[in-house]
Amino acid sequence: MSQVALSDLNAASQAEFVAALANVVEYSPWIAEQVAARRPFAGINQLFDAIKAAIQSALPDLQLALIRAHPDLADKTQRAAGLTAESNAEQNSAGLDRLSEAEYAAFERVNKAYCDKFGFPYIVCVRRHSKDSILRDFETRLSNIAKTETRRAIEEICRIAALRLDQLVAADDKLKVHGRLSTHVLDNHSGKPASGIAVELVELASLGESRVITRAVTNHDGRTDAPLISGRPLPIGRYELRFSVGKYYAERNVPMSDPPFLDEIPLRFAISEPEGHYHVPLMVTPWSYATYRGS
Amino acid sequence: MSQVALSDLNAASQAEFVAALANVVEYSPWIAEQVAARRPFAGINQLFDAIKAAIQSALPDLQLALIRAHPDLADKTQRAAGLTAESNAEQNSAGLDRLSEAEYAAFERVNKAYCDKFGFPYIVCVRRHSKDSILRDFETRLSNIAKTETRRAIEEICRIAALRLDQLVAADDKLKVHGRLSTHVLDNHSGKPASGIAVELVELASLGESRVITRAVTNHDGRTDAPLISGRPLPIGRYELRFSVGKYYAERNVPMSDPPFLDEIPLRFAISEPEGHYHVPLMVTPWSYATYRGS
Amino acid sequence: MSQVALSDLNAASQAEFVAALANVVEYSPWIAEQVAARRPFAGINQLFDAIKAAIQSALPDLQLALIRAHPDLADKTQRAAGLTAESNAEQNSAGLDRLSEAEYAAFERVNKAYCDKFGFPYIVCVRRHSKDSILRDFETRLSNIAKTETRRAIEEICRIAALRLDQLVAADDKLKVHGRLSTHVLDNHSGKPASGIAVELVELASLGESRVITRAVTNHDGRTDAPLISGRPLPIGRYELRFSVGKYYAERNVPMSDPPFLDEIPLRFAISEPEGHYHVPLMVTPWSYATYRGS
Amino acid sequence: MSQVALSDLNAASQAEFVAALANVVEYSPWIAEQVAARRPFAGINQLFDAIKAAIQSALPDLQLALIRAHPDLADKTQRAAGLTAESNAEQNSAGLDRLSEAEYAAFERVNKAYCDKFGFPYIVCVRRHSKDSILRDFETRLSNIAKTETRRAIEEICRIAALRLDQLVAADDKLKVHGRLSTHVLDNHSGKPASGIAVELVELASLGESRVITRAVTNHDGRTDAPLISGRPLPIGRYELRFSVGKYYAERNVPMSDPPFLDEIPLRFAISEPEGHYHVPLMVTPWSYATYRGS
Repeated sequence: MSQVALSDLNAASQAEFVAALANVVEYSPWIAEQVAARRPFAGINQLFDAIKAAIQSALPDLQLALIRAHPDLADKTQRAAGLTAESNAEQNSAGLDRLSEAEYAAFERVNKAYCDKFGFPYIVCVRRHSKDSILRDFETRLSNIAKTETRRAIEEICRIAALRLDQLVAADDKLKVHGRLSTHVLDNHSGKPASGIAVELVELASLGESRVITRAVTNHDGRTDAPLISGRPLPIGRYELRFSVGKYYAERNVPMSDPPFLDEIPLRFAISEPEGHYHVPLMVTPWSYATYRGS
Repeated sequence: MSQVALSDLNAASQAEFVAALANVVEYSPWIAEQVAARRPFAGINQLFDAIKAAIQSALPDLQLALIRAHPDLADKTQRAAGLTAESNAEQNSAGLDRLSEAEYAAFERVNKAYCDKFGFPYIVCVRRHSKDSILRDFETRLSNIAKTETRRAIEEICRIAALRLDQLVAADDKLKVHGRLSTHVLDNHSGKPASGIAVELVELASLGESRVITRAVTNHDGRTDAPLISGRPLPIGRYELRFSVGKYYAERNVPMSDPPFLDEIPLRFAISEPEGHYHVPLMVTPWSYATYRGS
Repeated sequence: MSQVALSDLNAASQAEFVAALANVVEYSPWIAEQVAARRPFAGINQLFDAIKAAIQSALPDLQLALIRAHPDLADKTQRAAGLTAESNAEQNSAGLDRLSEAEYAAFERVNKAYCDKFGFPYIVCVRRHSKDSILRDFETRLSNIAKTETRRAIEEICRIAALRLDQLVAADDKLKVHGRLSTHVLDNHSGKPASGIAVELVELASLGESRVITRAVTNHDGRTDAPLISGRPLPIGRYELRFSVGKYYAERNVPMSDPPFLDEIPLRFAISEPEGHYHVPLMVTPWSYATYRGS
Repeated sequence: MSQVALSDLNAASQAEFVAALANVVEYSPWIAEQVAARRPFAGINQLFDAIKAAIQSALPDLQLALIRAHPDLADKTQRAAGLTAESNAEQNSAGLDRLSEAEYAAFERVNKAYCDKFGFPYIVCVRRHSKDSILRDFETRLSNIAKTETRRAIEEICRIAALRLDQLVAADDKLKVHGRLSTHVLDNHSGKPASGIAVELVELASLGESRVITRAVTNHDGRTDAPLISGRPLPIGRYELRFSVGKYYAERNVPMSDPPFLDEIPLRFAISEPEGHYHVPLMVTPWSYATYRGS
């Protein structure tokens, strides 16, 4: 997606500005109209704060209309037809277009319960979630009262807007909407970084199939050339990092048992802060290993 | 199974002795007959050495007959009908009566290749193996020459005999035919052994389904009341120990992220020495863990 | 010291009983007299409880006399002359006969302040302490009010009595007055216990010289044949365990840098529970190590 | 020290060039004269290679004169009087002006033995060493034959030249003459980097007193703002990093024993590669810790 410079937005006509930012909030150009009057903006954070203020200070009816303008998460038909391009891309990122039967049934059930209770669609910033965590979020939010839930929906709309703005607008400052997941393999048998180790990052799913998100190989410094996830929020969820250490030691003729005591090592952990930095290293010998949440 | 005292065997008539030990080697009472003459035995190890010597010094034709007296591993029909009680119990212990389709096909294939090449059944001490390691052993031994493979088959017959003897005869000394797998959970967050942690031991299978072998809960010393496996050989194979640490810390109100960074921790390792002592401990906090092969 | 059986004490005359237990509490046979009437005792714990009850229920004047019957800790002259044999042996165990000038001055200062403030000698169960921790205890107790301090002195007298009773009387049950400090070295480079590693246990001193308490060598299981400290309370204090791992790996021709990255490894820790079990293991490779408080 | 640009050296007259580089090798301007003719140099590595080639290809008599032009390491009087400013600064960096009596005696002894055996002064690139490692180097080199030792002396002269050149000349490329020592403290109790931990780096000495080289406090990322050593070679030697973790946890009200099980944690290690990168992290809880050689 090509970006527009903040300076150009500051200099644009009201109509141009509104056109550029119209879909930052789903089908709600009135927000961009209101924000246009606050120009110029010193940075993208200031622009986002203006958008957020416009949303949060809107009258209850307008907020409700805003919420209702959002697509129904579990309506596969609607996803195929009437979503904005932005919305469609976001929802696919969590794997919502690859639901197993059990997952589909679970989504249907909680989504119907949600709409029945609140009378408006469930809104969540999908890019900050995995399928599992959306289901957990549904359960948590279903127990809210309507007033709390309206506030939560508005929060999520703001998070979605932040991510869209981050993709759309180029500025000197950055919105804090991205996280980073990285790893590092230290070979404590040789006292050196472990290079050439195959690493897989797997998103674990309770109901459907777990899926490999990233495959990489450690470089001479024991790291992957790029972070395992970066440039986007880290989806809340459970993961497994899998390291092929048996092969690594076999190639270096390190004495091992047969089969090797350690071969593929799984490190299982959860991500709870989409904008956080997670460093999950592996310190390893053919007979021991350790990990920790690093930074 | 009731045991017979070594002293009684020493004092028994030749016929009684042979009757008692007839099935220590499958359908081959001539071994017991030969060994009977060497009495008295100071211990079970001496008795076993005599049995082993009788087998290993038998003429090639007799050894071949001995090998052919063993059941065909993958012939399910034969398993149900003509096996000795000992043989049937042993083969079920590795889960050979619970093969998946893929496993069954793999067993059929290698077993047929083995019989075709060598003209005698594949013999392995099943209690020292998991399904996976039997398949690996098949592949290794298929590449042997006949002479090597005859020696290997005799070795396995001796191992089977040792285990049967260990179950059958009570003596002051012990045959070294058992291994031990244990664990220990240290909570480095509180500086105390972690009690009340649910632990599962799972045997991993490449082709079929992995299965839970043992379930236990750690006691006040962070250990399980009994070893995870003991009183038998440890089946060669790949395993996973799974520790429910998320629940443990939640019950103690330790501050954690939501979902917890660490919840169920899997430690994946292989056993290669059926008669060895494996200690696989877990040192854990809500944010880190380590393991090693202990003793 | 030869022990007397509890059954003999139960059967003895009043005079014999009192003679046997006279010095369990310094110069205070009246306690034994009072306790004699409660016989028979089912176990040593019951006997000790009777002694403790007699001391704690004594009238204030009698308690004060009891406190004053104890030697002045820092009076070296008195130590040489008028201490009971029990008291002398106990105080030497903490190294009070090997004070540096700075330590001696510190003891003099706090001891004088204590006597001046409370009008009775400072009493502590010396065998539960190192020199450093006695100085810390002095500082803490100097800030007490007299009533609190009388109670604390009586507590310490009971602890001293328990240790003397444990040495004096043989019974089926045991008083819980001993601790245990042990270690274990796991070589994660070879996946085996590390045998033949020289280990030193050093008591650290803030003012005087640190001193080696125990020297040992790890056996085939990576442990020392006997615990580093056992059969007595663990003196509260700061310690260092020193492991000669450079020599261990050099002897095994493990590739290392020159000088080796790790040579003598110090593990520094404190003991705070004299009756506790401290296990301080070392998991080591030529390039890494870890320790934790085990059990 | 102000630097001269390589481009200026390339453009300078022969006399200017020789004047600028005269002392890169002690009292031996003939080297600079020879090298001047090879200009222009594309980078500092190329310039250094030319200097090295000139030294290594010099006739034996000239090499010997070069060696003899160097100061006698242990002659304190000479150090005070006749050393070049460069030489004096270098030798002080290893603490050679702060020798204990025992160290001084040891230096005198080996230095005399060296001069007696070889008839020329012992030369070592002092900035790559600690006092201890110079004494070890003496012992090793004393057992060499003269021819080997001449080669070793020339090697050290080249190392000294490289460091002087690095300080003297500014260029686009860099000589690989610097190492880096860094640390990182991860608090596995809270799952966060440990900030505000006081760290001391101590150079250990066998004969004299150990001395604190660096004091620092960890920042919000658990690291020190600057590496513990950088911008120079890491002196070969034994070190201890000391971390005040007891204070850190006490300030955060983490439950601990009294005295705390872990208070000041020493990590003892050796540096053997002056131009290497050493990362020595601490993973810690109030009850456990681990370290490893990182990168």
